[in-house]
Amino acid sequence: MDTILLDHGSGGLASQRLIKEIFVKHLSNQILDSLDDAAYLELNGKISFSTDTYTIDPIFFPGGDIGSLCVSGTVNDIAMLGAIPRYLSCGFIIEEGMDFDDLEKIVESMANTAKKAGIYIVTGDTKVVPRGSVDKIFINTSGVGEVIMDTPLSGSSACPGDAVIVNGTIGDHGLTIFTTRKGISMDFDLKSDCAPLNKLILELITRIPQIHVLRDPTRGGLATTLNEIALQSNVGIEVKEEDIPIKPGVKEGCDILGLDPLYLANEGKFICILPKEYSIEALNILQKDELGKDAKIIGQVVDSPKGKVILETPIGGRRLLSMLEGEHLPRIC
Amino acid sequence: MDTILLDHGSGGLASQRLIKEIFVKHLSNQILDSLDDAAYLELNGKISFSTDTYTIDPIFFPGGDIGSLCVSGTVNDIAMLGAIPRYLSCGFIIEEGMDFDDLEKIVESMANTAKKAGIYIVTGDTKVVPRGSVDKIFINTSGVGEVIMDTPLSGSSACPGDAVIVNGTIGDHGLTIFTTRKGISMDFDLKSDCAPLNKLILELITRIPQIHVLRDPTRGGLATTLNEIALQSNVGIEVKEEDIPIKPGVKEGCDILGLDPLYLANEGKFICILPKEYSIEALNILQKDELGKDAKIIGQVVDSPKGKVILETPIGGRRLLSMLEGEHLPRIC
Repeated sequence: MDTILLDHGSGGLASQRLIKEIFVKHLSNQILDSLDDAAYLELNGKISFSTDTYTIDPIFFPGGDIGSLCVSGTVNDIAMLGAIPRYLSCGFIIEEGMDFDDLEKIVESMANTAKKAGIYIVTGDTKVVPRGSVDKIFINTSGVGEVIMDTPLSGSSACPGDAVIVNGTIGDHGLTIFTTRKGISMDFDLKSDCAPLNKLILELITRIPQIHVLRDPTRGGLATTLNEIALQSNVGIEVKEEDIPIKPGVKEGCDILGLDPLYLANEGKFICILPKEYSIEALNILQKDELGKDAKIIGQVVDSPKGKVILETPIGGRRLLSMLEGEHLPRIC
Repeated sequence: MDTILLDHGSGGLASQRLIKEIFVKHLSNQILDSLDDAAYLELNGKISFSTDTYTIDPIFFPGGDIGSLCVSGTVNDIAMLGAIPRYLSCGFIIEEGMDFDDLEKIVESMANTAKKAGIYIVTGDTKVVPRGSVDKIFINTSGVGEVIMDTPLSGSSACPGDAVIVNGTIGDHGLTIFTTRKGISMDFDLKSDCAPLNKLILELITRIPQIHVLRDPTRGGLATTLNEIALQSNVGIEVKEEDIPIKPGVKEGCDILGLDPLYLANEGKFICILPKEYSIEALNILQKDELGKDAKIIGQVVDSPKGKVILETPIGGRRLLSMLEGEHLPRIC
């Protein structure tokens, strides 16, 4: 069995072999192994439910692959509500002719990331489509978690006076994917920040339940995500350009390639908005963790201009930081 | 806005317009409209969780489209555990250049089917990929429901002595997709059986909580699904060929085209396995409903041969009905 055949998506014997020899082999747990039409879960009644489809190109990249990405991404989305992610589903669309070893590498990577995040993949679906109907492999992960805040966090809860924190350097993922796809090599160690953030977030929300907003700046980058929050909360957000953590190499690479790091996708970052008096405590919690060591306070929530984000430049200028309009980097996640 | 552009998948302004002008317009509800990274749900703690990706070709077909299919399919999978489906997620992968009106038709169809099933679509994700990276549109739906049985139903619960019921004619969906794709016209009213079954199932499990197994024979058809149950329950299953409901036109069409209706996918059918003494009551419940009017008892569970399905032919012969080996109809769901 060197390549994936249409037979593997038939629902019949070949599918069953694929499920046993790849999926159950690496992802096995009591719930998944029942192989019923649906998974049976027992969960606290307050639930965070999220979905994301991953169409990234290339499927293997420095710092991760579509497997670590599809688990991290959905785990992070679930956590952003102030929740503990528990269970994921996975839906594979595989192109006929895909290398069997590549698929196994991806599933192993999913298993490793799930273990790191402390979650289980409990149900799945596999479609194999004829050559040319999909580019290699796309994966959907959906998932559920238990909301532990009294009220779930939301992008609509930012208040004037709040501080805006980001847990580390931005743009790493987007620039990595762009340069890997184009075959451009950089003269520094560039890799995706792809990682499950749920354990760090759990510590943060347990110790500071006063947090107002958590959101991960994936597609559209930091600039777009801040705009979404400003709109949802009907507030203004001011950020200081010099306080936004960006690796020097990423900054330089973006300059050369004509990309703006503020609009590049991140896969291991989140924005935390909370009352100013808790911001130092939050920074301390973040900076003790490898995933938050470069955390910084980057700005504040203000009353107006409502629904807008203002960037203060190092020389004291102020300009509107708009939402991403079109698409400069498709298939980034 | 006549066609879908890469910009619509950017996560930026164009994405937001697409979300508002198509998705929120048709699918709006209080949970979806919050547009956070995840949906916040309050559910009973016993949960049925399922996922399925739909890659059907063609996307519009007699009796349905990829929109009605992707809602019905996941609703049905959730229900098979003995659960009331509540909330669905949807993940779209759209090919750049897709007709905007086609997408809207699909989303409208999802909305209508959700309404019929009494469920809500509460969270979603949209990716637009460059022309040629996917064939038109693939949709993942995942969902959760509340298990109302004391223990969830499972394919491993069939017992010798149980009756095997199917709620109507089989093969309709598979033959419809095959003939539509190939441009073959049939001289009778052939259409997919695609439908949400949850309301009928709710009535059935409420009135007969003694049911052991529910499962929908989708990919791989009736024969493969019966084999799965025989294996999971470690029992034999005997079915009488003449009792399996098949529309005369479907039978004839399959004969001409060299297809076996027992292996064709269904999207509005389920197998119900329950103690024989409840089988007449179950039939009565089913036959009063439009979705169960052709229900029949098709066989019984026996002690051996374990893990096998035996087909009794009209002239009294007995043959092994094996699981589907390979794939004769890709992209059927």
